[in-house]
Amino acid sequence: MKIPVIMDMDPGHDDVIALFLAAGHPDMDIRAVTTVSGNADIGKTTRNALVAADTAGLDGVPVAEGAGRPLIRRPEHAPSIHGESGLDGPELPVPTHMVEERHAVDVMEDILLHSEEEVTVIATGPLTNIALLCRKNPKAAGRIRHLSIMGGGTFGNWTPAAEFNIYADAEAAEIVFASGIPITMCGLDVTHQALSSQAVVERIKEIPTMAAQFTYELLDHFQRAYEERFDLELPPVHDPCAVAVCLQPSLFTFESADVKVETAGKHTYGETVIDASAAEGPVQVAVKVDNDKFWDLILQSLKNLP
Amino acid sequence: MKIPVIMDMDPGHDDVIALFLAAGHPDMDIRAVTTVSGNADIGKTTRNALVAADTAGLDGVPVAEGAGRPLIRRPEHAPSIHGESGLDGPELPVPTHMVEERHAVDVMEDILLHSEEEVTVIATGPLTNIALLCRKNPKAAGRIRHLSIMGGGTFGNWTPAAEFNIYADAEAAEIVFASGIPITMCGLDVTHQALSSQAVVERIKEIPTMAAQFTYELLDHFQRAYEERFDLELPPVHDPCAVAVCLQPSLFTFESADVKVETAGKHTYGETVIDASAAEGPVQVAVKVDNDKFWDLILQSLKNLP
Amino acid sequence: MKIPVIMDMDPGHDDVIALFLAAGHPDMDIRAVTTVSGNADIGKTTRNALVAADTAGLDGVPVAEGAGRPLIRRPEHAPSIHGESGLDGPELPVPTHMVEERHAVDVMEDILLHSEEEVTVIATGPLTNIALLCRKNPKAAGRIRHLSIMGGGTFGNWTPAAEFNIYADAEAAEIVFASGIPITMCGLDVTHQALSSQAVVERIKEIPTMAAQFTYELLDHFQRAYEERFDLELPPVHDPCAVAVCLQPSLFTFESADVKVETAGKHTYGETVIDASAAEGPVQVAVKVDNDKFWDLILQSLKNLP
Amino acid sequence: MKIPVIMDMDPGHDDVIALFLAAGHPDMDIRAVTTVSGNADIGKTTRNALVAADTAGLDGVPVAEGAGRPLIRRPEHAPSIHGESGLDGPELPVPTHMVEERHAVDVMEDILLHSEEEVTVIATGPLTNIALLCRKNPKAAGRIRHLSIMGGGTFGNWTPAAEFNIYADAEAAEIVFASGIPITMCGLDVTHQALSSQAVVERIKEIPTMAAQFTYELLDHFQRAYEERFDLELPPVHDPCAVAVCLQPSLFTFESADVKVETAGKHTYGETVIDASAAEGPVQVAVKVDNDKFWDLILQSLKNLP
Repeated sequence: MKIPVIMDMDPGHDDVIALFLAAGHPDMDIRAVTTVSGNADIGKTTRNALVAADTAGLDGVPVAEGAGRPLIRRPEHAPSIHGESGLDGPELPVPTHMVEERHAVDVMEDILLHSEEEVTVIATGPLTNIALLCRKNPKAAGRIRHLSIMGGGTFGNWTPAAEFNIYADAEAAEIVFASGIPITMCGLDVTHQALSSQAVVERIKEIPTMAAQFTYELLDHFQRAYEERFDLELPPVHDPCAVAVCLQPSLFTFESADVKVETAGKHTYGETVIDASAAEGPVQVAVKVDNDKFWDLILQSLKNLP
Repeated sequence: MKIPVIMDMDPGHDDVIALFLAAGHPDMDIRAVTTVSGNADIGKTTRNALVAADTAGLDGVPVAEGAGRPLIRRPEHAPSIHGESGLDGPELPVPTHMVEERHAVDVMEDILLHSEEEVTVIATGPLTNIALLCRKNPKAAGRIRHLSIMGGGTFGNWTPAAEFNIYADAEAAEIVFASGIPITMCGLDVTHQALSSQAVVERIKEIPTMAAQFTYELLDHFQRAYEERFDLELPPVHDPCAVAVCLQPSLFTFESADVKVETAGKHTYGETVIDASAAEGPVQVAVKVDNDKFWDLILQSLKNLP
Repeated sequence: MKIPVIMDMDPGHDDVIALFLAAGHPDMDIRAVTTVSGNADIGKTTRNALVAADTAGLDGVPVAEGAGRPLIRRPEHAPSIHGESGLDGPELPVPTHMVEERHAVDVMEDILLHSEEEVTVIATGPLTNIALLCRKNPKAAGRIRHLSIMGGGTFGNWTPAAEFNIYADAEAAEIVFASGIPITMCGLDVTHQALSSQAVVERIKEIPTMAAQFTYELLDHFQRAYEERFDLELPPVHDPCAVAVCLQPSLFTFESADVKVETAGKHTYGETVIDASAAEGPVQVAVKVDNDKFWDLILQSLKNLP
Repeated sequence: MKIPVIMDMDPGHDDVIALFLAAGHPDMDIRAVTTVSGNADIGKTTRNALVAADTAGLDGVPVAEGAGRPLIRRPEHAPSIHGESGLDGPELPVPTHMVEERHAVDVMEDILLHSEEEVTVIATGPLTNIALLCRKNPKAAGRIRHLSIMGGGTFGNWTPAAEFNIYADAEAAEIVFASGIPITMCGLDVTHQALSSQAVVERIKEIPTMAAQFTYELLDHFQRAYEERFDLELPPVHDPCAVAVCLQPSLFTFESADVKVETAGKHTYGETVIDASAAEGPVQVAVKVDNDKFWDLILQSLKNLP
């Protein structure tokens, strides 16, 4: 049976690759793409989602715009990584896919309450939309079968203590991690193993699909941005991990843990405090990934797309 | 012209009196009543709103249930003042008014976006619904002509520093006070002048309407609760101030101020920090009320109701 | 019997008047003057203390320099009120009084442990020295019979929520208010009743002592500074209140309260949260003063000095 | 030339081994032992320091009692690791070494200001004494040539985010890490490599000195406590690392970093936030140790002692 999913994202280079991984895989059924302010402002992340939906051939899948800013803190974007457009690198065409009139949260509510099966949500941006859903319609939020988050970790990339997605709306993350929804978390500990090597990039370049060419150009920019901003030669490709976890959990090693989000610290705002001491924590934290098989999965999807 | 209003409340004794004041006044046009967790849990405040709508004869006015808990902090209720039902005192009949299927925030959105005139919102409970509206649909929130809040003050009643409505969801209040919506604030400084005297209670008892009898029984309980809990002989009747401010601003003295809501303090969570030093602050803080004329206004409405 | 006192201060115009009030009164026996960073940096407050000791004829009384900065936060000074010197107005001669070699905290320890009677401490600056004493030598701190503080209040003068002395080292104040030492607190509620009128200033001008002339020149500057900075025509003369409380408690009305100091708030750092609801709070908070008799006390001291 | 050191500690099993390592090494000249509240209350840590000084033959070295509680937070002790005595395991004789009359901070001041060479301070407990020194006498604190701290790390042992010594007085640690004193930090990252194996314990048992026998009994208790409390078979022997760093820095690998101490977090109080991104951070953080040579160093000292 196909996994029905909502993709909640702030594209962003690796968000788009995550969407391609999901869209190209025969076991996944994308019910909606929802956008959130994050890597770029909401206008740009929505535009980027529409472009990605076009490229992936997601005709008929609703793309709905969500929260234009975090719950409490000021908006934070990441142009040093994703460029001014949020998706620097490939040329961005005017999208033909039309944005939904309804708000992302309304679309989520509708799908969660009216789908026959329980639905998975994959969140690769700040967690503002999901937090709003939790507070506005806890019954709908309670229908999420599995929430797969890219975010957090035992170290940071946006501050010494915090990863970007959590830092960009720590109050939303606090709400979501305390919600009781079954969560898997792909933090930096595992995504920094999901590195894009030169060999991988070359293999992608060979794949004669639009999605593969788009991905190639994304990775090309991404690699240079990571080298400049973080002095990392091989960029970690974070967001597709949160999709791969749903498709092939066996590629990952997990640790059960209780995860708290720090919202009060002077130096630790947005840190995920992971307590693995409890025997049975409510969050499955991915700590290891088989990087070769991870990329095989992505390449297969890229081949399956237009 | 009538003032179109949405009444956002957590009834609560004084919320009901506020609703009666609005419903009985010829200049006010209630478009919806929305409920929020506060004085009692959301099930009870919604039930109480329906009972009050029945008593006030608000046929055809939608009553919609809103947020069942605060954004971040744990729910806080006030049974020591309002009793277990949230409305102890009068016998509470099973309401005949039916609750809306739609969520309070959706009802607000709909009215704000589709009303021909800009709409006033009167908020006499925690500000969770309005904060959700601000974040989910800033365009709709931007259509609020005037937000009249009962909450805050330079001293507290729930902690030494904080008033109940703000304390019960300080993060929501922080969002709302920073939203740019034009706000008047009736805090404890003014509501502690809006005292219900024995003479007033007797005059209400004489009014031969259902609403007046209900109010009489509410005030009777309220007076005893304030005496027990706060050792105050005459109870401040807070919430109708936020209605009176819209109907007859000339009864009040205002001070322009910038108002910040403390969410981080160890001893000051939920405090409204009122800075009147700026010549033109964005919030009109009521600091004085003509108590006699205030009660005249309420009594007139009670006479006009069924 | 004379009251043995240590004067801990950051002079500061009103600190000097407080010292004169103490030095000129027959019932007070000043055992030491200790200085702290506050109204100006520690070099200046120590120099000013020496000048004041000269003017008051405090030969033989040790003047010891204390903490050069607050415990945790960055130093905060008040040149808008006290000028660059900390004592703008009168000409400041080079002091002849020599500063102690020992640190203020060592001097306090020594007096408290070796005095036959228990000693009163009057603190008219930030509470850094007393907090250090509490932590370094709790036995000596436990020998303080009475700590009379000028600081705090239900409103602020340095921020909307905080008074300068507490704001300038709120962590120290937190330590001191939680120490168990018997405290009286003269906050802004009472010191804003201790106003220097034109009539008072004229009476001081007539007194033919050096101390009175010095005071006259201090008040002249102080009055203009308050008018410019706070738009107050008559300046509150805060610090002598903390001396008068020891000399004639009957001039004041007190309220027993529990006082907490906020150190975590975003908008309330340094606020004193006064909880008078407990029947018997550990702090005596002065809420009212007889202003005429207060100035009579000061004038009498000025007449008794050189 | 010998390194003149002050040993500031809260013995504690590993503190005593740290003291033995220092006392038995020919290159180290212990000028004073100062105690602080931490692993046990101040009465016990002082008694334990005196017993250790007896065992190490430190005749003539002053042992001075310091801070009996943290600056701001409530006292925290570690009986689950160190037992009720703070030094469970060996029988604790009544010490013959007498405690100094002067306070630890006064002793430190005196040595730092009057020693001909600049002095190293090795701190293996909470940093309360050093923070008090920084605030009471910054000139003396400025004479510390090198401060070697055991504390902190990128993970915690007392909470998921914090190590015991820093957690027990995070405000003091904040003061010390921001003081500008040259610091090396042995956090859990390195001390969890300094494991006491069965082989090591057996070698210590063979050494026919009192200090070795005492150490053997300490390690025996310590090993069992770590197994029970943390489910660690081999206990990390933290504190001697801070001594070894001074004696043989070549055993360690360091990273330059800026270190902030979190004092405001809800879940991260006492965390050391280590920012190694700056090319030249002011703190040398030890990240690796040669465990074999580390134990050789300790064993040699144990052989040299009585």
